[in-house]
Amino acid sequence: MAPLAVSLGDPAGVGPELICEAWARRAAERLPPFLVCGGGGLLREAAIRRGIDVPVVSIGEPAEAADRFQAALPVLGDANGTYHPGEPDSEGARLALASLEAAAALTTAGKTTAIVTGPVSKAELAKIGYPYPGQTEFVAAACGASAEDAVMMLAGPSLRTVPMTVHCALAEVPGRLSVELIVRRARIVAAALTRDFGIAAPRIAVCGLNPHAGENGRMGREEIEIIAPAIASLRAEGIDAGGPYPADTLFAPHLRDTYDVAIAMYHDQALVPLKALDFDQGVNVTLGLPIVRTSPDHGTAFGIAGKGIASADATIAALRMAGEMAARRAPAP
Amino acid sequence: MAPLAVSLGDPAGVGPELICEAWARRAAERLPPFLVCGGGGLLREAAIRRGIDVPVVSIGEPAEAADRFQAALPVLGDANGTYHPGEPDSEGARLALASLEAAAALTTAGKTTAIVTGPVSKAELAKIGYPYPGQTEFVAAACGASAEDAVMMLAGPSLRTVPMTVHCALAEVPGRLSVELIVRRARIVAAALTRDFGIAAPRIAVCGLNPHAGENGRMGREEIEIIAPAIASLRAEGIDAGGPYPADTLFAPHLRDTYDVAIAMYHDQALVPLKALDFDQGVNVTLGLPIVRTSPDHGTAFGIAGKGIASADATIAALRMAGEMAARRAPAP
Repeated sequence: MAPLAVSLGDPAGVGPELICEAWARRAAERLPPFLVCGGGGLLREAAIRRGIDVPVVSIGEPAEAADRFQAALPVLGDANGTYHPGEPDSEGARLALASLEAAAALTTAGKTTAIVTGPVSKAELAKIGYPYPGQTEFVAAACGASAEDAVMMLAGPSLRTVPMTVHCALAEVPGRLSVELIVRRARIVAAALTRDFGIAAPRIAVCGLNPHAGENGRMGREEIEIIAPAIASLRAEGIDAGGPYPADTLFAPHLRDTYDVAIAMYHDQALVPLKALDFDQGVNVTLGLPIVRTSPDHGTAFGIAGKGIASADATIAALRMAGEMAARRAPAP
Repeated sequence: MAPLAVSLGDPAGVGPELICEAWARRAAERLPPFLVCGGGGLLREAAIRRGIDVPVVSIGEPAEAADRFQAALPVLGDANGTYHPGEPDSEGARLALASLEAAAALTTAGKTTAIVTGPVSKAELAKIGYPYPGQTEFVAAACGASAEDAVMMLAGPSLRTVPMTVHCALAEVPGRLSVELIVRRARIVAAALTRDFGIAAPRIAVCGLNPHAGENGRMGREEIEIIAPAIASLRAEGIDAGGPYPADTLFAPHLRDTYDVAIAMYHDQALVPLKALDFDQGVNVTLGLPIVRTSPDHGTAFGIAGKGIASADATIAALRMAGEMAARRAPAP
């Protein structure tokens, strides 16, 4: 099987050391083979700094990765930089972007089965003219998809959540919600849970926007005018959507077993429960794209980069999930 | 020591059976003595339905409760009703209100040391002309305090949170926030954590309103214009307030240890993490009142009332917390 492609993330962040740590735990964690796009020297330094033994091998073709993976961390491409953890700069941002571009190109060309992106600094990328709000939009564009159809899901051992709006002020959230938006994105979620996660008939729980899901219009009318009609429309298509449910109770333990994914109306409604429950193991998955893309659900963590204390659990979970999703998409042998 | 006063809550909800269950576990849980305001016959029926042995004793004065408590559940007052769990009606709402009124009167008069309120149905109370949005406002009025100064805190084993706005549509939240509101309520929180919880210098973490706490104004300006100035003002008074912090990461395990309470900007920002982590043990505490008031942080649960499956953990936690708070307020002997 072809390997996964991993992008470095910002080299001053925790990305490089967590890639090394994940490789070092490849056997115990049963990780699929992966290659890293660039940063060979930098990865060596990151491993030494973290105190782990990670031989790095330069490969010429993605197909070599599987055979080399057990003995060394395969790196494709000569892009590199100096390792100065905790001190981001434009040189590092350019390397992060080059690594992301290479990983996306390999995956869209089918030479790698999925892309797993390391954490980048949006502020540093903006300084070098990167025009996207995040990596998701870049990956969508790289495979010719609309950013509208690239749907972010957060997945951990306890919970999967999908926010309908993401990076906008809270005051703008009510105005951005519409029946069409929810129906379009929920359809993508339902199809992806079947195709990529093997859930035949996904159970989708939809959050209300307001406290207690509005209490029949007493605290906001979005549930009545937008969310409930969207759920009715989804159900008419045969999608098992329910709600709108009060968000505060929906993430309680006894209710988490009743759905496969919770659709939230805004960023923190989706991310607060995920990070409260599964902080070190949260994976950011992009649904609705022709390629598989996952990412650890944390940032660059410049403050602890190079100190050997950042947890690799989310990186490992992102690698494993990407491998499982890619295997489900692969044509039967 | 004088007992706690417990109000029944809606008699068709889980309130009565959970009071009985808490009494039955009084020794193992080391609960302080409490009395129930009314509902003697109803409590007997609820205990039988739940399959637990709970002798009920009618007392004439609160002071009798402590002596009787080990052998029987003390009930003060003759108010009663029929037990038909899961079928709320106006008769039940009137009993719930009478029990609440009696418990508040006893506590404001100093005959009981605290009030622990059972869950009521706001809809049923509204039908009989109850003019308050919840029980908190009633209790505030009963002790002559402004509802503005009655601050709701949710407390569980993992977390304490305080929402600055509560029962309003999400769209109204940004407009309701102000420097004055946050400063006034955070002062109450700081004073109460010291007085009632014994924390000498409470560490207060303040959430941002917007995703990533607005990212320096890129996604909303409330952090810059309202929340940060409020924090600066609190710090100038010597209160250990920090933030605004991105809400999605603030409730992660490694950050929960860094503060004593998190101040949230709206209902779900406070309640989602609390219920995700501590659903069965969440206590609703009213800070800033001359009397101690706690409540289990769940509703009437009409759907499971009388079935013997509702957890009494939150009721037990509310009773224990009320006892501890009252003990801290009591003058040294």
